[in-house]
Amino acid sequence: MQAKNQNDVLEKVVSLSKRRGFVFQSSEIYGGLNGCWDYGPLGVELLKNIKEEWWKFMTYREDVEGLDASILMHPRTWEASGHVENFTDPMIDCKQCKSRFRLDILADSLAAKKRRKFIEAAAAKLSAEYPQVADAAQLKALSDDEVSDLFNEILESKTASLLLLEEINCPQCGNKNTFTVPRNFNLMFKTFIGPVEDSGSTVYLRPETAQGIFVNFLNVQTASRQKLPFGIAQIGKAFRNEINTKYFLFRTREFEQMEMQFFCQPDRDKEWYDYWKAERLQWFINLGMKADKLRYHDHPSNKLAHYAKEATDIEYQFPFGWGEIEGIHNRTDFDLGRHEQFSGKSMKYFDEESKQKFIPYIIETSAGASRSTMAFLIDAYDEEMVNDETRTVLRFHPRLAPIKAAILPLVNKDGMPEYSRKVEADLRRYFKVFYDDKGAVGRRYRRQDEAGTPFCITIDTQTMEDNTVTIRDRDSMQQERIASDRLTEYLIKKL
Amino acid sequence: MQAKNQNDVLEKVVSLSKRRGFVFQSSEIYGGLNGCWDYGPLGVELLKNIKEEWWKFMTYREDVEGLDASILMHPRTWEASGHVENFTDPMIDCKQCKSRFRLDILADSLAAKKRRKFIEAAAAKLSAEYPQVADAAQLKALSDDEVSDLFNEILESKTASLLLLEEINCPQCGNKNTFTVPRNFNLMFKTFIGPVEDSGSTVYLRPETAQGIFVNFLNVQTASRQKLPFGIAQIGKAFRNEINTKYFLFRTREFEQMEMQFFCQPDRDKEWYDYWKAERLQWFINLGMKADKLRYHDHPSNKLAHYAKEATDIEYQFPFGWGEIEGIHNRTDFDLGRHEQFSGKSMKYFDEESKQKFIPYIIETSAGASRSTMAFLIDAYDEEMVNDETRTVLRFHPRLAPIKAAILPLVNKDGMPEYSRKVEADLRRYFKVFYDDKGAVGRRYRRQDEAGTPFCITIDTQTMEDNTVTIRDRDSMQQERIASDRLTEYLIKKL
Repeated sequence: MQAKNQNDVLEKVVSLSKRRGFVFQSSEIYGGLNGCWDYGPLGVELLKNIKEEWWKFMTYREDVEGLDASILMHPRTWEASGHVENFTDPMIDCKQCKSRFRLDILADSLAAKKRRKFIEAAAAKLSAEYPQVADAAQLKALSDDEVSDLFNEILESKTASLLLLEEINCPQCGNKNTFTVPRNFNLMFKTFIGPVEDSGSTVYLRPETAQGIFVNFLNVQTASRQKLPFGIAQIGKAFRNEINTKYFLFRTREFEQMEMQFFCQPDRDKEWYDYWKAERLQWFINLGMKADKLRYHDHPSNKLAHYAKEATDIEYQFPFGWGEIEGIHNRTDFDLGRHEQFSGKSMKYFDEESKQKFIPYIIETSAGASRSTMAFLIDAYDEEMVNDETRTVLRFHPRLAPIKAAILPLVNKDGMPEYSRKVEADLRRYFKVFYDDKGAVGRRYRRQDEAGTPFCITIDTQTMEDNTVTIRDRDSMQQERIASDRLTEYLIKKL
Repeated sequence: MQAKNQNDVLEKVVSLSKRRGFVFQSSEIYGGLNGCWDYGPLGVELLKNIKEEWWKFMTYREDVEGLDASILMHPRTWEASGHVENFTDPMIDCKQCKSRFRLDILADSLAAKKRRKFIEAAAAKLSAEYPQVADAAQLKALSDDEVSDLFNEILESKTASLLLLEEINCPQCGNKNTFTVPRNFNLMFKTFIGPVEDSGSTVYLRPETAQGIFVNFLNVQTASRQKLPFGIAQIGKAFRNEINTKYFLFRTREFEQMEMQFFCQPDRDKEWYDYWKAERLQWFINLGMKADKLRYHDHPSNKLAHYAKEATDIEYQFPFGWGEIEGIHNRTDFDLGRHEQFSGKSMKYFDEESKQKFIPYIIETSAGASRSTMAFLIDAYDEEMVNDETRTVLRFHPRLAPIKAAILPLVNKDGMPEYSRKVEADLRRYFKVFYDDKGAVGRRYRRQDEAGTPFCITIDTQTMEDNTVTIRDRDSMQQERIASDRLTEYLIKKL
């Protein structure tokens, strides 16, 4: 599943990100803060461009409004949403060494052979709940995969998880029979508002941006005078106190979401679900992501979240396997209904045509800005042999590229620097550009390839004679000569 | 100080903000969350435009790099910065009714006469520390303003504040002699990272974005290959657990900053301080803010923060008085020096020309994005009489206006809707536009005036004959006719 060369790509992207200033470890001088990352000079432009493209695609249309709600929300919000009760992971502590583990991760680490042994050993005690384990012969005949499925199924029972804990040694200190009973640990970060630290002042850092949209549904609808169907879109930070962060920007504690909630008549949910499912995949492809690295993963109906009627993930094939970069969900009238119940305020919409009052259904498109950034980085990463040297190039879509054009005077004399500075000043009014006069021009091209700059403009002796410059294309490395006063127009067309 | 009609303006802007969707109270359906606000459809565009203009002005230049650091940082950051120790307000509790107050606010509420009485009563006990209160005759001769200054000065002493508490009744329950001794309350929001809630896992929501820049100084410098002098710019959320929030977006608990830290040779600090002081004021004026509503407030040297050598506020004349919207500070080598000390990592820069290694000086420009939004809103607000009716208009600079143009078919027949939709589709590729075919055209103009839309494009019978449209200017209300295929070009030039 994890090919060696594929993991190499992840390592190379992480290393390039640090070296060239896409992504740094947060608070690195203090040893870092696990699950948090900082975007450097190139990374912040890439992230900004991704968010800007999303914003234009999603809100430069008549039926979607924008919103920017605060990260701190009234705590009742998270009771209504179900997060206070359900947004938990089961945790266990080792009584000997005081280490803490997630029960499901610990169980996951168990080899197939050990899982089989555990089920066999515990069969008698489990058979009341799981009759299928009662027959020893039948149990033996199961394949490893079937055993794994069964193992995961029975792990959901408390009896089974307690029995299991008797079988596992603490991975930290090696002791046996040393675990506490599993307890639910809430993944929301909590803090206290105002000067008194008690339960009455507890607030949470939002674990998703969606709820800020739901509670503002009628405010936005009234102010914008929108009629159903319409959507509300928002980009913003969210926080989850993940026990296990992993894979660079993929699972982090602080991350950015790009979410849109589309409110529609209940009987038109399927139509809009299908519409947005198609639109959102197309967005990634429009921005140059390889179509064969993208797929839908439809959730089977027995695995749906409690609020969802239908759900799909848009997955990208990362070096470590397929991973979700966006979710499209039919959330039904669950969220608005819950907020109506918990706030005592009507969340109903009055439909002028049908003269009916009802709670709209919601189709959600929830993309990770941080995960998308990682996917675009990995998708753009390429190496090729050029003149017996490895050329590393980030093949970003020009609209996503952090720097749009580099201006390179061939030599630092004969009027070329002055000419180049004029070109730079003209372009800088419209684009993020970069001026580089240091080192051989071949090395300068390579530096721009690594930064993903789509166009390199070189000023040479011919420029000084006829006012033409060369433009080198990042991907083909082909150069063409154009009049320097046509540069702005040329780039605007390409971008 | 607070003129009645001026406070009216604040009320009107708050009310317009809610009604038209600039700013909503956060979590309003749950009674709101004090000190937090949500930006609605028009507000999010205004805020985005302000941030985008800042980003272009500050980073589309060769000597400034961008950054986007995480909100959660390693807790040692805040020990190094001095926030754990010093970012506090003195708090007192009423032992009777358990209410909590900020000592300085409580003291502020004391009338001039009571202040004088307090000083006279406490003179004997205070005279050891403050010889100037020892002479009763001299004390009597002081003006009210002089008494206030003296009062504020002696309040800094612990003896004085304890004496004062004996004089004040609890504003909540009215009891006397019921306060605890003042304690320092830290204004940073704290939370816990990982599953264990103890001091070892405490992290803070950043109270300023600046520290994310300081800890990344060498990462950014290395990756971008910048040489001194150069700056690092960042836009992002910060959080302060203010006891007293006030004035709409002015003092909130969650807010957004636009900060730039400019690193320079220690002996060039004055030059860059003056440069950025001028640049930053000009930025507000360039975006249409009235110059006579802006001023510098230079901090006298005895009132400087512990890290600052020189500091000025850019203040805007709000309806409630002058208030800071940006600060420019010479932070010297304080911050990098502290991080070097606390992290054990060198923060020194090697200057190739002078072959010297040193910690750079920092000139900081720290603007509030939320406060700027409020200032731009208030500055743009205008009312005028037109045909015996009050016209409310937001005179935003076109680049800041949430909607750039509205497309208004004069009547909903005779091909005008179809024609208008085509105009809309053409413009929407470039600009945020709005289509409105509801109601009399006069009322539609007024709605766009209130939203600050600089241009209204009307499609009428003449359009259908000769392909011209009228463009109405928001401020002058003058209309001109232009060929509809010249619209995009016309707007690009105006924006």
